[in-house]
Amino acid sequence: MAERAALEELVKLQGERVRGLKQQKASAELIEEEVAKLLKLKAQLGPDESKQKFVLKTPKGTRDYSPRQMAVREKVFDIIIRCFKRHGAEVIDTPVFELKETLMGKYGEDSKLIYDLKDQGGELLSLRYDLTVPFARYLAMNKLTNIKRYHIAKVYRRDNPAMTRGRYREFYQCDFDIAGNFDPMIPDAECLKIMCEILSSLQIGDFLVKVNDRRILDGMFAICGVSDSKFRTICSSVDKLDKVTTQAVLLQTPAQAGEEPLGVGSVAAGGRYDGLVGMFDPKGRKVPCVGLSIGVERIFSIVEQRLEALEEKIRTTETQVLVASAQKKLLEERLKLVSELWDAGIKAELLYKKNPKLLNQLQYCEEAGIPLVAIIGEQELKDGVIKLRSVTSREEVREVAEDLKSGQNRAFNFYYGTTPFSYKAQEA
Amino acid sequence: MAERAALEELVKLQGERVRGLKQQKASAELIEEEVAKLLKLKAQLGPDESKQKFVLKTPKGTRDYSPRQMAVREKVFDIIIRCFKRHGAEVIDTPVFELKETLMGKYGEDSKLIYDLKDQGGELLSLRYDLTVPFARYLAMNKLTNIKRYHIAKVYRRDNPAMTRGRYREFYQCDFDIAGNFDPMIPDAECLKIMCEILSSLQIGDFLVKVNDRRILDGMFAICGVSDSKFRTICSSVDKLDKVTTQAVLLQTPAQAGEEPLGVGSVAAGGRYDGLVGMFDPKGRKVPCVGLSIGVERIFSIVEQRLEALEEKIRTTETQVLVASAQKKLLEERLKLVSELWDAGIKAELLYKKNPKLLNQLQYCEEAGIPLVAIIGEQELKDGVIKLRSVTSREEVREVAEDLKSGQNRAFNFYYGTTPFSYKAQEA
Repeated sequence: MAERAALEELVKLQGERVRGLKQQKASAELIEEEVAKLLKLKAQLGPDESKQKFVLKTPKGTRDYSPRQMAVREKVFDIIIRCFKRHGAEVIDTPVFELKETLMGKYGEDSKLIYDLKDQGGELLSLRYDLTVPFARYLAMNKLTNIKRYHIAKVYRRDNPAMTRGRYREFYQCDFDIAGNFDPMIPDAECLKIMCEILSSLQIGDFLVKVNDRRILDGMFAICGVSDSKFRTICSSVDKLDKVTTQAVLLQTPAQAGEEPLGVGSVAAGGRYDGLVGMFDPKGRKVPCVGLSIGVERIFSIVEQRLEALEEKIRTTETQVLVASAQKKLLEERLKLVSELWDAGIKAELLYKKNPKLLNQLQYCEEAGIPLVAIIGEQELKDGVIKLRSVTSREEVREVAEDLKSGQNRAFNFYYGTTPFSYKAQEA
Repeated sequence: MAERAALEELVKLQGERVRGLKQQKASAELIEEEVAKLLKLKAQLGPDESKQKFVLKTPKGTRDYSPRQMAVREKVFDIIIRCFKRHGAEVIDTPVFELKETLMGKYGEDSKLIYDLKDQGGELLSLRYDLTVPFARYLAMNKLTNIKRYHIAKVYRRDNPAMTRGRYREFYQCDFDIAGNFDPMIPDAECLKIMCEILSSLQIGDFLVKVNDRRILDGMFAICGVSDSKFRTICSSVDKLDKVTTQAVLLQTPAQAGEEPLGVGSVAAGGRYDGLVGMFDPKGRKVPCVGLSIGVERIFSIVEQRLEALEEKIRTTETQVLVASAQKKLLEERLKLVSELWDAGIKAELLYKKNPKLLNQLQYCEEAGIPLVAIIGEQELKDGVIKLRSVTSREEVREVAEDLKSGQNRAFNFYYGTTPFSYKAQEA
């Protein structure tokens, strides 16, 4: 394999040389000569027998979340959800796909970015493009005229992804919307407040909120003498202009707000959509709505980059104690203890080995950031105690087995209370 | 509309009469006569003008989650996630769709149930059918040989839905899997333990765990003289037999376990899949795996039914206090206070009305289950205090405004501590 790797490297270098010569407009003879060399090397290399049958990748514009990325995601979601709940929102969920006709005529030119499902018989379906249209469908279908809800879910757009900047084809939206007939601007103001609260709590730096009301634009167009027939086209042009220069927000709704932290582009947007629900209602009854959407993917990128820069160690499990043994043939005893700890609600693990070495068990704790190890040995079993050791400080206490099992263990509770483990060890 | 409803009922009844006569093989004349009556009634009814342009529904086999259903879902997930974390699992997520070829050849006959996406140019994609194959792809792609992870997400099957029994085309799976080379049966035993812990915590009644090892069946077949060529077919027949009689578990994996609470069918299943990761690895390197999957949709159904039977009132928001006013023209003061409460981390709401009536504000609290109302009036503003009232007991205390805003309010803290609000009111 080492030989193959060397050959592959040679092919690569020779390919670069050929490209270089072509760029420099070298003589045809020289290029031909070098191409011949390249072909010879490629022939030597032959087909890669080890090449896998499957392309091992996620679809274009999508990604897996590793445990570390999930930790970031849960942290961000936690902040956002806490804010939405603080503002009294209920929560709903809708299917990942809708009837194709539900989405049709809602997104203008962007409709071409909708993922359709294959017609395998039955209904024609499309993946949701945002959470707003499914929300409007939900309101009309359930004849709701009044709700304040949030919805956090993935949406799908066949766009050109720019994943390094947090732009994906499958991405999360965190939406908060207020539907109902209310006095002007009160729900709108709350949406702005929510945006500010969330972006402040996330500590991703300074941000700028742009507030606009399309009726101002309407008035300017009227003064300029724009005819009704040209109105939509001009709006669309202004919209694009804005997107190109500042990557800001949608201009399709009467009122709106966008956020633009330095160098990141828009991470939140919102506005009114008073006509959408009426499009679904059989009698065209309108339900005025206002809402906001947080673009969390960009926020994930920022937080991930910050954590990487800090080289901060993030735990991806919450295990409190590893059940270990110092001698061989104690698998059953380890299983018994770990099982009793689980039943007592304690987060515990054991190595899936019959006779693991104590050193390996301690190393596992250090790698996984597990703070405590409960060690069983012949002597401890005889005495009816368990040795509880702090992995970092290496301090040890011998605890009555029954106490540990019942979750009433004092050292354990000390550790997970406000007092560090060492305090108990000194006291003992 | 009442007239129309009556006519519709008549059409329905006449239709039933015609069908009945046909079944009884009545005379042709009689049937003709009744069909004529039916057609006349239908003509009278005419087309339904109020019929909406859109079919207002979710796709077949899918559903929305209302705030109430979300409360059930979050409660169930919380129990399951706490258990998975107690066992030291990390968490991952994968895209909702995979390359079509990733799923191909993994599900045998069931492949016909996979949702494909329409070919809109680019890669051919399919919605995930379970979380196991994406997990195996994730392991191979990242060259992981050792991980314990959980994954809770929706999967998609073009199956015949039986939604009343919790069978959907879009449904959640809660998977816990242990991948790696370990000593025999230790991770398998933990998977069984996890199933039991979860089903016990959910308090959905007694359950039966069926444990099996397909190698026993292999041995029986060998003794019976089953040839290698017939082996797969016979396994498949036995598999179906089992499904028909007990709705139990998959028989495709060497070892397995299924759960069957009385009258509900299987709500969990699991087993080993030692060969799957190797199917993705370019060099066929195997990563032995064992895991379990909780079928939460059925559990949601059970819990929802139980709650309905109990007529238990479930709060769908967490709002702690409504900011209200007793007089008109206090919108700004209400907005100022609610804003300060939000900044102090208190869950608060206000009505989106300029001048709401106090009665309406109190009614809103009762409907939404909000326990406290902070009332601002002219006098309170002068005195720099806020009247804090318990909605149920109607007890009132006057609190210094600054204390309430800073979140340091004693009555408020008492209420949300262990002591009920009335305690503070008596003490005051």
